[in-house]
Amino acid sequence: MPHESVFPFHNVQADILLPDSFPLSSPRESEAASPLSWLWRIFGYDPTKEKTTHVVVPKARSEGDGGMNLATALQYGPATGMAATQKFTASFSELVFKPAFADWKTIVQTGNTDGWSRCARMLCNPGDTIIAEEWTYPSALASAAPIHINVLPIALDGIGIRPDALREALANWDESKGRRPHIMYTVPIGQNPSGATMDIQRKKEIYDICVEYDVIIVEDDPYYFLQMDEYAPKAARTESAQASQDNESFLASLAPSFLAIDTQGRVIRLDTFSKTVAPGVRLGWCTCAPLFAERLERIGETSTQSPCGLGQSLVMRLMQEWTIDGYVRWLRGIRVQYGARRDFFIDTVSEVFSLERRVCTQGVWAGSDVYTAYARPRSSMFMSEKSTRKALFEFVPPSSGMFVWMKLNLAEHPLRLRGAEPGEDELSLEMQFWTQLAEGGVLAAPGWFFSAYVNEDGSGPDFDREGHLRISFSNASTEEMRKGIKIFEKTLREFFAV
Amino acid sequence: MPHESVFPFHNVQADILLPDSFPLSSPRESEAASPLSWLWRIFGYDPTKEKTTHVVVPKARSEGDGGMNLATALQYGPATGMAATQKFTASFSELVFKPAFADWKTIVQTGNTDGWSRCARMLCNPGDTIIAEEWTYPSALASAAPIHINVLPIALDGIGIRPDALREALANWDESKGRRPHIMYTVPIGQNPSGATMDIQRKKEIYDICVEYDVIIVEDDPYYFLQMDEYAPKAARTESAQASQDNESFLASLAPSFLAIDTQGRVIRLDTFSKTVAPGVRLGWCTCAPLFAERLERIGETSTQSPCGLGQSLVMRLMQEWTIDGYVRWLRGIRVQYGARRDFFIDTVSEVFSLERRVCTQGVWAGSDVYTAYARPRSSMFMSEKSTRKALFEFVPPSSGMFVWMKLNLAEHPLRLRGAEPGEDELSLEMQFWTQLAEGGVLAAPGWFFSAYVNEDGSGPDFDREGHLRISFSNASTEEMRKGIKIFEKTLREFFAV
Repeated sequence: MPHESVFPFHNVQADILLPDSFPLSSPRESEAASPLSWLWRIFGYDPTKEKTTHVVVPKARSEGDGGMNLATALQYGPATGMAATQKFTASFSELVFKPAFADWKTIVQTGNTDGWSRCARMLCNPGDTIIAEEWTYPSALASAAPIHINVLPIALDGIGIRPDALREALANWDESKGRRPHIMYTVPIGQNPSGATMDIQRKKEIYDICVEYDVIIVEDDPYYFLQMDEYAPKAARTESAQASQDNESFLASLAPSFLAIDTQGRVIRLDTFSKTVAPGVRLGWCTCAPLFAERLERIGETSTQSPCGLGQSLVMRLMQEWTIDGYVRWLRGIRVQYGARRDFFIDTVSEVFSLERRVCTQGVWAGSDVYTAYARPRSSMFMSEKSTRKALFEFVPPSSGMFVWMKLNLAEHPLRLRGAEPGEDELSLEMQFWTQLAEGGVLAAPGWFFSAYVNEDGSGPDFDREGHLRISFSNASTEEMRKGIKIFEKTLREFFAV
Repeated sequence: MPHESVFPFHNVQADILLPDSFPLSSPRESEAASPLSWLWRIFGYDPTKEKTTHVVVPKARSEGDGGMNLATALQYGPATGMAATQKFTASFSELVFKPAFADWKTIVQTGNTDGWSRCARMLCNPGDTIIAEEWTYPSALASAAPIHINVLPIALDGIGIRPDALREALANWDESKGRRPHIMYTVPIGQNPSGATMDIQRKKEIYDICVEYDVIIVEDDPYYFLQMDEYAPKAARTESAQASQDNESFLASLAPSFLAIDTQGRVIRLDTFSKTVAPGVRLGWCTCAPLFAERLERIGETSTQSPCGLGQSLVMRLMQEWTIDGYVRWLRGIRVQYGARRDFFIDTVSEVFSLERRVCTQGVWAGSDVYTAYARPRSSMFMSEKSTRKALFEFVPPSSGMFVWMKLNLAEHPLRLRGAEPGEDELSLEMQFWTQLAEGGVLAAPGWFFSAYVNEDGSGPDFDREGHLRISFSNASTEEMRKGIKIFEKTLREFFAV
């Protein structure tokens, strides 16, 4: 163990943003002083104009600093995290997620991908099968594959995993495929990629089945605080109720965690600062039963050990300065940012395409408002031209998260219309479209990427008949979004020969 | 991917120490202005008196900043590390370790425990056996055990792994135990726990055997820059040649890495900033063939992803400010610190005990100067009393690292002298002594902790007959060291009934 005198940091410091840096609602354009002022606040970002306060973490210890010094933070530390991190994560999970069992613990990890990877290694033996949503976060599967974990995909609807499909899959499990799955990996909020939000009623139904079949639930919830108002077309949009909430009613308005109904300690919840502070801090935590926490601590000790002390001390110094109350205020501000981005994105889609809304009654979007996008006539001269009235893609405006999950209407592709089959060596239609779009300058994530049908039997979607894209609205500027959506339209027209 | 506008750090800053903060030699006490001045410089540490310069990493990008901004560092980044980290690690490995094959790469990890854990997962299947030193770093075995990796311990001598023992173990491998080991885990410098330093001649012998039997060498080398002058008793100590070295001759004086003779790309070298900057930065890198680097990148993507961006950017900003030349100067300074600590520790041992030096010709210390410690007579009245002339423990002053590995002379324990056998349920003599010492207030690491004989067949040392302690001299103050060594003496007297 090195001596702290040879740690070359005398201190670290930061200018940190104030917790109320972002407004609590997106003003209607008409109400704003300038029609573009709120857009500017969200998209016209200028880092030189941030309002900040200064914080310092000194090397030297001082009484009552709770270990918030570099002599501690830069030394080897417990795999449970620095004292400040342990205290913060426990307080936050208590306040926000309210576990229904008494002796839960929190334990740090370096982000939820790492958190899930640790859980998979802790809970599974080679040859085991985990339960996952039929469309899921690809890295979760990539973490499991090298340790020979198979996947049992369960059908989704507009709220998330379907209880009937889950029960059927467990009840009819074929023991020749190994022991019945005992782990479920789920992204219940801002479901990746579908953007669905699982409410408490659905969680109860899923939880009860997991009790019946003794399934451990790993709840990967990075988008928890990006729960948004339902999307409304621009003309029908009213003032959000968000602005008049206080911290308490904000937290109460969020769909509860599985933890809130977990009376048995079978939920391992993964939280991360990646979407609420920054991905680069590589810091998150698990909330779980002590049995799991102890094993996760051992995994931590033999891999990363305590997460980076510079990262932990700066993030915890930020939280100390803000207080938990300030952090909740910050979370309210950033969800407005992402809500406004989602609205701007879909508003622009509705300008470029002709959108029709309907309530979907079956399939992955059952119970949701589905928007079907048609190409707009090229000019008023051809306004009545029937052939352009083709449904090109469909989507459900996400109620949480950072992505829109779009379903391409491949049935309308010329090849499909002719009844032709693509050659075996050719790219799937989904990937043909993805490639054309990427060559046009727009990078989306192709649907196959998210398919949980990764088992060797080759079951799963036919990407010549079922094509998806996951498009992110979280990062681009307004100009880039507009440009991207126009390229998307042009590529769709070429692809569908509209 | 979140938008950088919602990253709450406007910048991070640090006051960093100057690269020449520590002197290049430990002046003899007689030469110093005050007899204690050099000790004060090393042990009388006062963090408020550090000489520093100020560095800033802003959020905003600017031209030519090489990605050294928080907009980049706090975003998701490549599992190969930030651009600055990639550049630094490649330049440093090139300058210092000089790999003998052309297309090597560097890839980050979060410290060498993580680095080895990744290598084990990359290279081994369940049931495989790895080669390790008979005494080794316990976490390395703890990382391997859960993936069902067995260990083949190889005997050590005063330089490290014995070539004859390695060849014999590989040539006579019993295939009924699974495939012949194809991975060697080694800590060649500051061997943990023995403190041995493997020179280039020995490395060549080991490498050639690894070529013959197709063994991949994982070289875990955290103590590489803590290579010290040979210990000399205080009276015989002369001015170190270290002070007159320049950076180049310093680097040339260090025992070369396995990489320097690796013409085949079969060495994966693990480097860490833990011992040279601080453990809490959780940053290190592998230098290896591109085949391995690619797989390690995939493992990184599905676990920690890029190491903490606050850590990476602050460490790399430090290196930018210092330059590699400054960092090498820093390394020269800190090895003097640890050398002086080792000297102070052994000097104090020689005051409390009566030490005798002999050259050892066989066993784990073959070829080294071994010091045997006897209890000093309690007072001059009993100076000639024969019964106190008991050899209590032996050690070799380490030539690198942070530890002294002490062998307890259990043959002199009253139980052994009586020829009695301890009860089966009792603690081993080693652990009895360890417990007494810990209860006295001195925490050492017991020998069994480092034994590579962890296989189910129960082979390996009998800790009633062979007892060790690893004592660290890297962290305690002079007062604590003196006090600890006195407690050690008192506990030894009680234990050996002297």
